[in-house]
Amino acid sequence: MHEPMARVNGTRLLQDLRRLAEFGKLGTGVDRVSFSQPDIEARAWLRERMSAAGLDAAIDPVGNVRGVTRQSARAVVIGSHTDSVPKGGWLDGALGVIYGLEIARSRIEAGRAPALGVDVVSFQDEEGTYASFLGSRSFCNDLDAKTMEGARSQSGELLTDALRRAGYGGQPWRYDAARHVAYLEAHIEQGPRLEAQARRIGIVTGIVGIRRFRIAAKGQADHAGTTPMAMRRDAARPLYEIAHRIHAEFPAVAGPDTVWNVGIVHVHPGAANVVPSEADMVVEFRDTSAQLLDEIEALLRAWVAALDGRSGVKLEASGLTRIAPTLMAGRMETLIESAAAEHGAAAMSMPSGAGHDAMVVGRFMPAGMLFIPSIGGRSHDIAENTDEKDIVLGCEVLARVVEQLETA
Amino acid sequence: MHEPMARVNGTRLLQDLRRLAEFGKLGTGVDRVSFSQPDIEARAWLRERMSAAGLDAAIDPVGNVRGVTRQSARAVVIGSHTDSVPKGGWLDGALGVIYGLEIARSRIEAGRAPALGVDVVSFQDEEGTYASFLGSRSFCNDLDAKTMEGARSQSGELLTDALRRAGYGGQPWRYDAARHVAYLEAHIEQGPRLEAQARRIGIVTGIVGIRRFRIAAKGQADHAGTTPMAMRRDAARPLYEIAHRIHAEFPAVAGPDTVWNVGIVHVHPGAANVVPSEADMVVEFRDTSAQLLDEIEALLRAWVAALDGRSGVKLEASGLTRIAPTLMAGRMETLIESAAAEHGAAAMSMPSGAGHDAMVVGRFMPAGMLFIPSIGGRSHDIAENTDEKDIVLGCEVLARVVEQLETA
Repeated sequence: MHEPMARVNGTRLLQDLRRLAEFGKLGTGVDRVSFSQPDIEARAWLRERMSAAGLDAAIDPVGNVRGVTRQSARAVVIGSHTDSVPKGGWLDGALGVIYGLEIARSRIEAGRAPALGVDVVSFQDEEGTYASFLGSRSFCNDLDAKTMEGARSQSGELLTDALRRAGYGGQPWRYDAARHVAYLEAHIEQGPRLEAQARRIGIVTGIVGIRRFRIAAKGQADHAGTTPMAMRRDAARPLYEIAHRIHAEFPAVAGPDTVWNVGIVHVHPGAANVVPSEADMVVEFRDTSAQLLDEIEALLRAWVAALDGRSGVKLEASGLTRIAPTLMAGRMETLIESAAAEHGAAAMSMPSGAGHDAMVVGRFMPAGMLFIPSIGGRSHDIAENTDEKDIVLGCEVLARVVEQLETA
Repeated sequence: MHEPMARVNGTRLLQDLRRLAEFGKLGTGVDRVSFSQPDIEARAWLRERMSAAGLDAAIDPVGNVRGVTRQSARAVVIGSHTDSVPKGGWLDGALGVIYGLEIARSRIEAGRAPALGVDVVSFQDEEGTYASFLGSRSFCNDLDAKTMEGARSQSGELLTDALRRAGYGGQPWRYDAARHVAYLEAHIEQGPRLEAQARRIGIVTGIVGIRRFRIAAKGQADHAGTTPMAMRRDAARPLYEIAHRIHAEFPAVAGPDTVWNVGIVHVHPGAANVVPSEADMVVEFRDTSAQLLDEIEALLRAWVAALDGRSGVKLEASGLTRIAPTLMAGRMETLIESAAAEHGAAAMSMPSGAGHDAMVVGRFMPAGMLFIPSIGGRSHDIAENTDEKDIVLGCEVLARVVEQLETA
């Protein structure tokens, strides 16, 4: 009926993932933030593995590790990132990179490279220790000098100093419209939906846009025993009201996949018997529909405007993050769906609620993302894990997608 | 019509207040927490001033400084405390002690001591650096050995070690039912009401009861981008709802003078993109009516019970503070009212929203409290201040109250 399914070496795939997890190993997870010694060593190891696989491997000036299939004029880019959050899991990012390595390697071994090459990449600093999506933005030539010069880690090191310390150099590796036909990124789901629905493959429809606001209130500190209620300028009170209304009233305007969170709240001075003088909170919401995000933002801004000035409390909403949604290419969704079906793998379509390098790259070429389940929905934690059978299946499905692209 | 009004020496009163403010002086305020070197020195100075006024002065084993009018078999106790909060004001506590000193001194000078003596006191540690109301509780024999042994300052020093360090000794000074006819305490208002109403004397009806609860919520941390709303166990959400309802719905059950505050909120782990796993807040409310406090507490507990378990979040309310209201003696209120009227001073009745030694002593003998205005309502801050004319007027009114008690 159809040509034999793409072969990948599951044992070798798992071995490479386990070996990579030794860099920055922390219990069952890893602590391998970008530009840490374990991250620098992991990238050097990866370059060696790419060379051993027959790829033309190098680390570019921002630390992107790339392995190019020189035999091919056209290539699909497969990758993700090998840096982690502090105290992170062993699969976040690493999975997508080693999938790329294994698929490129098995295609070269099978003599299938020339038809459609696979260029493998580990992008730099996806997790934003210095600058979010640094590597994929560099790849897409979407970085300005100002961002590069101003970026600094939480511990205060300048990105430019970190780059000097790591000693990266050579030519930047850039997106090549004549060569690169698509970008594929596999990732653990980082959420509970596949597991809850007993699906093994997630077909990502898009990466949600994120809007994040700080709502700050300024009132006046007063003794909470001696100041009558009517004379108070309680900075926290309107924030409690807004936080409550977010949870009570967002559902009426939200879509089925919209998510929101009020995860940061500070109340000053923070004493039981002192009326709060200042308070702030951070609200974020995510959806793949920019229009829905607009509607939710309008609602939030209306509440802030309505409460600003009440009881002498000044309220202000300031935007912290504004990331547009990125839709995946419909054709990639179809290919992942059919590849999963060929493998008899239960699949479902879903948005990605977290950011990924595909969000950046997807603005420049057709991009597709495939998820495999996260046990217990856990990620950004050393407890992050996925069944080995699911890890191997995901790679087989992605290899089949490449094969379909090749014959298209 | 009536005997000549009590004379106090306003200049001397202000001089003693200014001299006392030199101990621990910090800008326009004082930093004179109990058992600090400035506090120990201030108490020694006060004992000297009491002796110089003709009082039998001593510092007792907990550090209460008392000056007893030996000529008199019956006495009114007048006092407050000379310890301050860190970075506190110059009048909080000090005012009531120096009023006592000046009234006792001027009565001795005028030969009026025998009829009704004035016993002056600066109670130890009213501000609770080691143990709240330590001195007045000792005076009322309302302290157990366990409290004494377990008490420790925020910096970790045991109260027993602080007492050893200060070297206090001798006989404890105790409430004497046969001698002590009443307790009078003057204090700055520490709130804005007198100033807002253009009154110079506050007649305290009672000291509010305080109930303070910690409401703690336990849910689960999840990625706020990838976890659908329906699968979250957001610990902060029910607290936002309760905090909002406190401000929105307490007014319906509260009395005209009830006050409440939600001054402490913690949300963990405190990241914009992580669903809160744990959250807690501290709620307090105050009123002079125990019945009202019961009703408010029942409402709060009902909300906690109704929300406990919703969306897998465990809620718990635990009592932190439970202080019963103390009503002032009606007769003292009447005497303060008439004394203020005789001085042509605009007065108003009001509860005390803050705790005072009168709260402890008032359970053992008739107690009265008089407030003078706080400029801008400020206290527990070096900006705390009162017009000198109001300071002198308050002392004159209190001296008149003693005179009225003498002739009663």
